[in-house]
Amino acid sequence: MAGKKVLIVYAHQEPMSFNAALKDAAVRELSAQGCAVAVSDLYAMGFEPRATRSDITGTLSNPDSFNYGVEAHEAFKKGALAGDILAEQKKVQEADLVIFQFPLYWFSVPAIMKGWMDRVLCQGFAFDIPGFYDSGFLKRKLALLSLTTGGVASSYTKAGDYGDFRYFLWPLQHGTLHFCGFKVLAPQISFAPEYSSEEERKSMVASWTQRLKSLWTEEPIQCSPPWYFGQ
Amino acid sequence: MAGKKVLIVYAHQEPMSFNAALKDAAVRELSAQGCAVAVSDLYAMGFEPRATRSDITGTLSNPDSFNYGVEAHEAFKKGALAGDILAEQKKVQEADLVIFQFPLYWFSVPAIMKGWMDRVLCQGFAFDIPGFYDSGFLKRKLALLSLTTGGVASSYTKAGDYGDFRYFLWPLQHGTLHFCGFKVLAPQISFAPEYSSEEERKSMVASWTQRLKSLWTEEPIQCSPPWYFGQ
Repeated sequence: MAGKKVLIVYAHQEPMSFNAALKDAAVRELSAQGCAVAVSDLYAMGFEPRATRSDITGTLSNPDSFNYGVEAHEAFKKGALAGDILAEQKKVQEADLVIFQFPLYWFSVPAIMKGWMDRVLCQGFAFDIPGFYDSGFLKRKLALLSLTTGGVASSYTKAGDYGDFRYFLWPLQHGTLHFCGFKVLAPQISFAPEYSSEEERKSMVASWTQRLKSLWTEEPIQCSPPWYFGQ
Repeated sequence: MAGKKVLIVYAHQEPMSFNAALKDAAVRELSAQGCAVAVSDLYAMGFEPRATRSDITGTLSNPDSFNYGVEAHEAFKKGALAGDILAEQKKVQEADLVIFQFPLYWFSVPAIMKGWMDRVLCQGFAFDIPGFYDSGFLKRKLALLSLTTGGVASSYTKAGDYGDFRYFLWPLQHGTLHFCGFKVLAPQISFAPEYSSEEERKSMVASWTQRLKSLWTEEPIQCSPPWYFGQ
């Protein structure tokens, strides 16, 4: 939708990969709609995943016993976070929609993207206590996980080898994105591209592009236990 | 138990932290039992969390399109993985029990520990397809997550703000550890040390030490959906 701002946080090492094709398709389609699209290409940026003392410039509030969460919160308030964190927070702040594009690693995001979540979504910026879930600070924004899997779709069902795919989305969609206030759109899961034909892969990219055409009219999911566990 | 080997994979930045106290208590108690205890202190090691081309020494099987999972698998078979991965795999191979000690970050492990899982537990070493879950290659070993939370225990229940703690354990215990064959022992969760008194913190360390005294007689959990979701 013209005028909307989108951030794509992208974690794949290879520009020729299927994840890159999905990211490129989103850039193309959203740009064609008149959106401003920014991409954080984490591997290309050499993004730092480790939450350390280096994330805080200047003095610590308690140098005798380093507590990352407390120090990051204080540093956020003083504008004393490391530059790479500030740059990502600025992109998030400007975005109406954040898309996470990644291959599933161990039922979760790759470590480089986990590090983006650990470091960028700090207290004070993304949430506070209180000030989380529907009161999270990013509550006027949308978020969407677009991921690829190793296994085929039937493996990610209640009866399948890996269990329902919604189970592994809980910590990411509910525990992280919803916690920060994001309205979560349904995930885009491209199953088993490595076991698919070139034609099937093209069809998965096309269906992602097609979905993006009407994405702005989608209703977010009801991000609470029944969506995940059917209870 | 005398003669047993234990690896503690530990992710906290601060030697004065409560996580350090739990790690130190485990080293002390298990050593006193006559176990050989190794610690991978990830932050102190500057452990690399990012899964990249640098993890494979020598030539790639497909340099035109880098696929991390495929290349790591091939490199494992040829003994061509990076030295830091090989060193961790050797520690895992020798261990009868692996304990993961960490503060919960976003309903999961900190990125530095996620990187340990992404890079160390590669195909060929920890599992194959087929050759996972009860046939995973680490099936004669035990694993245990010992974690600290920000929130209090009542928040991590079905009726609490954050939902049942078992929900967020699914990707870690089932999707990762059980997938590699590990028998999973019940998690050790130390709730909200930051909101606890010094006395309460000491009592949490003491109860962890106490549990370790009879750990070798514990039955692993039934690591399947009913344990997590009560279905």
